[in-house]
Amino acid sequence: MAADVQFFKRVSIEQVEEGKELAPKFDEHGLLPCVTTAAHTGEVLMLGYMNAEALKLTITTGEAHYWSRSRQVIWHKGATSGLTQKVVELRIDDDQDAIWLRVDVIGDASCHVGYRSCFYRSVPTGEGPAVRELHFEEREKTFDPKAVYGDAPNPTQL
Amino acid sequence: MAADVQFFKRVSIEQVEEGKELAPKFDEHGLLPCVTTAAHTGEVLMLGYMNAEALKLTITTGEAHYWSRSRQVIWHKGATSGLTQKVVELRIDDDQDAIWLRVDVIGDASCHVGYRSCFYRSVPTGEGPAVRELHFEEREKTFDPKAVYGDAPNPTQL
Repeated sequence: MAADVQFFKRVSIEQVEEGKELAPKFDEHGLLPCVTTAAHTGEVLMLGYMNAEALKLTITTGEAHYWSRSRQVIWHKGATSGLTQKVVELRIDDDQDAIWLRVDVIGDASCHVGYRSCFYRSVPTGEGPAVRELHFEEREKTFDPKAVYGDAPNPTQL
Repeated sequence: MAADVQFFKRVSIEQVEEGKELAPKFDEHGLLPCVTTAAHTGEVLMLGYMNAEALKLTITTGEAHYWSRSRQVIWHKGATSGLTQKVVELRIDDDQDAIWLRVDVIGDASCHVGYRSCFYRSVPTGEGPAVRELHFEEREKTFDPKAVYGDAPNPTQL
């Protein structure tokens, strides 16, 4: 059930970039990417996708909703794990095809693998060998995914 | 010319999520999204896309390279404007289909409209009217896009 938020038709670059009308551009799958950061640290927690309904639900409820590409359903983040994301601020970018959500996370974890952030590994940059070994920036998991998700299928796809 | 960085074949969820092998997953257009934040403030500056070559160039040069979807070319950020992005840290997410770049920005601006961040407008959340008027979080442009880009075509597409 889509909440009642109006999106405007995109009519000009000036409207989209310089205006006050919410006129999001969804891609050929009806989605736009959403960067979610921890409001008080700036840490990027995850990159998710929203369809029109997920964006409307996020706006009206103040809790993050995404479109699950692996399960093909609206995904109220935390509905299974309890790790809901309370929206502190929702921003949209210049051409209105990407969202930035600043959130407070109940339970302080957002990643299905058990880490605080999905971005728990870095890649060494600069001159170096062809094989760049990933470095774990988070040493310990914040929660045990088996205990939280049980036998639910892993959303990662090869 | 692709730089010499090796990507591994994706063979298992454990390898992708818990391993040290760089095995990025590009979408059907050969791209993955990249969140770029200001290293010292955590502000999200932009959301761009990288193909394999852009990711390899970013890793080896330590400067952000993207794939321009509007111009269909490798885009060395700042090549036109001088607003290059020096990589402080490059992270990859759990299923290796998204990048987080922490950068220092020469000139302190990343948005082609002239703002510091592409995400210069917020959308009011919570209960409220159907029409949500965007709120400008940045009051003044950091640079004059006409002076910097001249007559180059605007990348925003309707």
